[in-house]
Amino acid sequence: MRQALEAMRFSTDDVSLQQRFMREIFLCAADLDFAQPPPSFAQKIHRRLREITDVKDPYLKVKQSFNRLALKMLPQIEHTIGEADDPFAMAVKFAIAGNIIDSGAKAALSESEVLETLNKTVAMPLLGDTDSFKKAVNNATDILYLTDNAGEIVFDRLLINFLPKGRTVLAVKGCPVINDALIADAEAAGLTKLIKVIENGSDAPGTILEDCSAEFIEIFKNADIIISKGQGNYETLSGRTENIFFLLKVKCPPIAADIGFPPGSHVLLENLRKKSQKISN
Amino acid sequence: MRQALEAMRFSTDDVSLQQRFMREIFLCAADLDFAQPPPSFAQKIHRRLREITDVKDPYLKVKQSFNRLALKMLPQIEHTIGEADDPFAMAVKFAIAGNIIDSGAKAALSESEVLETLNKTVAMPLLGDTDSFKKAVNNATDILYLTDNAGEIVFDRLLINFLPKGRTVLAVKGCPVINDALIADAEAAGLTKLIKVIENGSDAPGTILEDCSAEFIEIFKNADIIISKGQGNYETLSGRTENIFFLLKVKCPPIAADIGFPPGSHVLLENLRKKSQKISN
Repeated sequence: MRQALEAMRFSTDDVSLQQRFMREIFLCAADLDFAQPPPSFAQKIHRRLREITDVKDPYLKVKQSFNRLALKMLPQIEHTIGEADDPFAMAVKFAIAGNIIDSGAKAALSESEVLETLNKTVAMPLLGDTDSFKKAVNNATDILYLTDNAGEIVFDRLLINFLPKGRTVLAVKGCPVINDALIADAEAAGLTKLIKVIENGSDAPGTILEDCSAEFIEIFKNADIIISKGQGNYETLSGRTENIFFLLKVKCPPIAADIGFPPGSHVLLENLRKKSQKISN
Repeated sequence: MRQALEAMRFSTDDVSLQQRFMREIFLCAADLDFAQPPPSFAQKIHRRLREITDVKDPYLKVKQSFNRLALKMLPQIEHTIGEADDPFAMAVKFAIAGNIIDSGAKAALSESEVLETLNKTVAMPLLGDTDSFKKAVNNATDILYLTDNAGEIVFDRLLINFLPKGRTVLAVKGCPVINDALIADAEAAGLTKLIKVIENGSDAPGTILEDCSAEFIEIFKNADIIISKGQGNYETLSGRTENIFFLLKVKCPPIAADIGFPPGSHVLLENLRKKSQKISN
């Protein structure tokens, strides 16, 4: 609801349109199947908003501003990674920390605020096994990297620097939804020059596989490892049997309960290992 | 929605009841008359919640805990008021500052946090004319004081100390709604021993006059001045022609726009003067 309201305000100042949209959203919400993951509701809601307002990408300016902000900070962060004892682990930390750039509600974030938060989060422990992740990356023939948000995608570049370029494919969303990264954001982040970037064909703020393009599904199923950024991707993919490494900031109590780490935690979670752990428990 | 969710969580852990309630709330919201003041929606929503869950007062513990917390702080605040250059103006400040205790979302507020916030807010300027208010109070034959929340009602006592006891009536809500003060809270705050306390006969978190008891309406209409605490009372009474002094903390952008002071402001607003100002502009 908060997100719908926010997107609506980015889309139109027309109060009668706003009221019409909110009524539709309430009706849609009353009909929700609570068994579906949240990105599936968000997809429906933001799709309807685009239809009603005819604004194709309400978060365009927010996304551009986050990309610019992140790019401005990049040299300093690259320096920090270069100086680190374990540069790979530090790049993983920053890729997850970039997940703080996640919502238009924070569109007013200043550079110093982001920098302060990044420094704080980098000082936080990373919950997960970066060595196991590094080994999996080095042994993989085909890596699929699922991005989350604009702005954040710039920080993904820091981790992508450590991945085998010719064997990594980066996926962005196929259509605007909230501030999720699109091809334009991958370009702004300098990623299209670096590796192969594809659209997933979907407008869900997560990865609902049956909603994605045939090309994406094939790459997804053939990948040795999948690197999945953010909560939306976790919510839609955590039940799968592929070899997925989830890199995310825990942002709500239900996910915290599911993962077993408190909200605010920065987590690197291995899908298959999680399963075997659950079985062995 | 946030408030409905919160009240629901205070009322029941039964997930199927929670889902049923939220669906009903969404349907109810889709049908809203946006011209009605927010307390009117809140009234409908919290009434429905009480019916579905059969929990008559979900905020009972929260209210009791806020009363205890405020009572514990009272001696120190009374001392501050006694030492002030203008004790009446200082009491007005604390009565408005007490409006920070307004929601179960802040049920986890510690004493030191409340004290810190109170000290900050007392250092803030009070936007309004306390001299004109004091004069009106001294000249009045019948004063009606409309309370807002539990906990806050303890701070109201500080201002009530300056009012003519025999000529002042204090009104609380007639039925539990959110954390609004009831007779039990007036008792806990020591107010029933001090002045006449009445129920307004309504379960709206504001004052919807046509929903109140005949006794309350008569007192309301006969009062020389009405002292109205909080945003809920402002939202439901700001259009009236009675001589109302609104004491409130501005808590949302629409009220800020209406009053002309930014969110967070502490305001003493004279209803009749506001009207004459609007006419003269």
